[in-house]
Amino acid sequence: MASGQLSRAEALACSGRRHACHVMLYCDTKTQLFGRFPIRHIILMQMRFDGLLGFPGGLVNPSKETLEAGLGREVLEELGVAVPVSVEDHVESRLVPPSSPYSPGLITHFYVKKMEEEQIREVERAAVCTATDHGQEVLGMVRVPLYTMRAGGGLAPFLSHSFIGNARSQLVDSLLRLNMVAPEELHKALTHSLEMHTQTVEGLKAALEQTEGKRKRF
Amino acid sequence: MASGQLSRAEALACSGRRHACHVMLYCDTKTQLFGRFPIRHIILMQMRFDGLLGFPGGLVNPSKETLEAGLGREVLEELGVAVPVSVEDHVESRLVPPSSPYSPGLITHFYVKKMEEEQIREVERAAVCTATDHGQEVLGMVRVPLYTMRAGGGLAPFLSHSFIGNARSQLVDSLLRLNMVAPEELHKALTHSLEMHTQTVEGLKAALEQTEGKRKRF
Repeated sequence: MASGQLSRAEALACSGRRHACHVMLYCDTKTQLFGRFPIRHIILMQMRFDGLLGFPGGLVNPSKETLEAGLGREVLEELGVAVPVSVEDHVESRLVPPSSPYSPGLITHFYVKKMEEEQIREVERAAVCTATDHGQEVLGMVRVPLYTMRAGGGLAPFLSHSFIGNARSQLVDSLLRLNMVAPEELHKALTHSLEMHTQTVEGLKAALEQTEGKRKRF
Repeated sequence: MASGQLSRAEALACSGRRHACHVMLYCDTKTQLFGRFPIRHIILMQMRFDGLLGFPGGLVNPSKETLEAGLGREVLEELGVAVPVSVEDHVESRLVPPSSPYSPGLITHFYVKKMEEEQIREVERAAVCTATDHGQEVLGMVRVPLYTMRAGGGLAPFLSHSFIGNARSQLVDSLLRLNMVAPEELHKALTHSLEMHTQTVEGLKAALEQTEGKRKRF
């Protein structure tokens, strides 16, 4: 097992820990981007209230409800529709290392659930139209692009964003485990992500200078 | 004028150039996050097909339509609802420098349009429910968090994402010009963004290593 990884039972046996459950909802699709690039799968992630990208879910108290019931409750609040998640959908549990900037000591539980394309579309609509958390805990749902366009657009730029905790690692792991992206292709995308990331820092520095100027003028 | 900046008339007088128009739609709001943090304004951005964050809009051909008519057409495709944008909403035009990795030589036109909160919510719903570009050019609409939470969540993490062209700069400029965020606060957020950005690179390197391992195993 990778460092910090626990079985679901081991994780539940840890006393005095806080627990968080998140789920990757996805479907297969035959649609193509611009009628050319196969989209293959629709994976849902969200822009969270804290400005980071992550999967739907949240804190669960295992002394009051099962992990899966708690996750279902969070998903209903965030997505506006009931999505039953079961023990069979559990993928991994992990202890956040004490050195992490995000919630050290937290135990995270990750689930993956495959749905029908029409169900995923219904989730997207409900997340905006009926979810109580829309505009609160959730600033918007986004699909993960798995393709790579000629100029490099798609998966690589997406992976260069800022993610909460180990959400990017959970996404990358899932893409490999479910054979959604070939290991070579994913490696290439991540290498490109790192290059893009270096360019982004220049943009951020420029924005900081832009603000410096305005601070003097205002 | 800042480098590369043109008046709308100067921009239109440039022959043989491609033009792109984008618009920042926003409203005031009295809602509070978790009943505590004033949200103040809802600003809409989108996850684009290329995996980058940007404003709604796209390419316009000024020999066939006005800039504003073209922008209106793009907005209707992407957001599923007609949002009339006029010359009065124009903020700046800019020539993308030849050194830029994104569309060097392109002329970008930026518009800002204030709406009512209910109209913004209608745009969010239509973008998912009726827009032809949903799941194609647009992977999802997101709101920009303008607040800063105790642990630093909100504006700073959002600004650390990867944006298309000069979209982050247009956002930062608009926040200052419309007094949505105080210059000191924005400066602090951008400084924090740069720090977070450095942390992100570690996550990306870890993901790359994760893929290295899988490449050998698969």
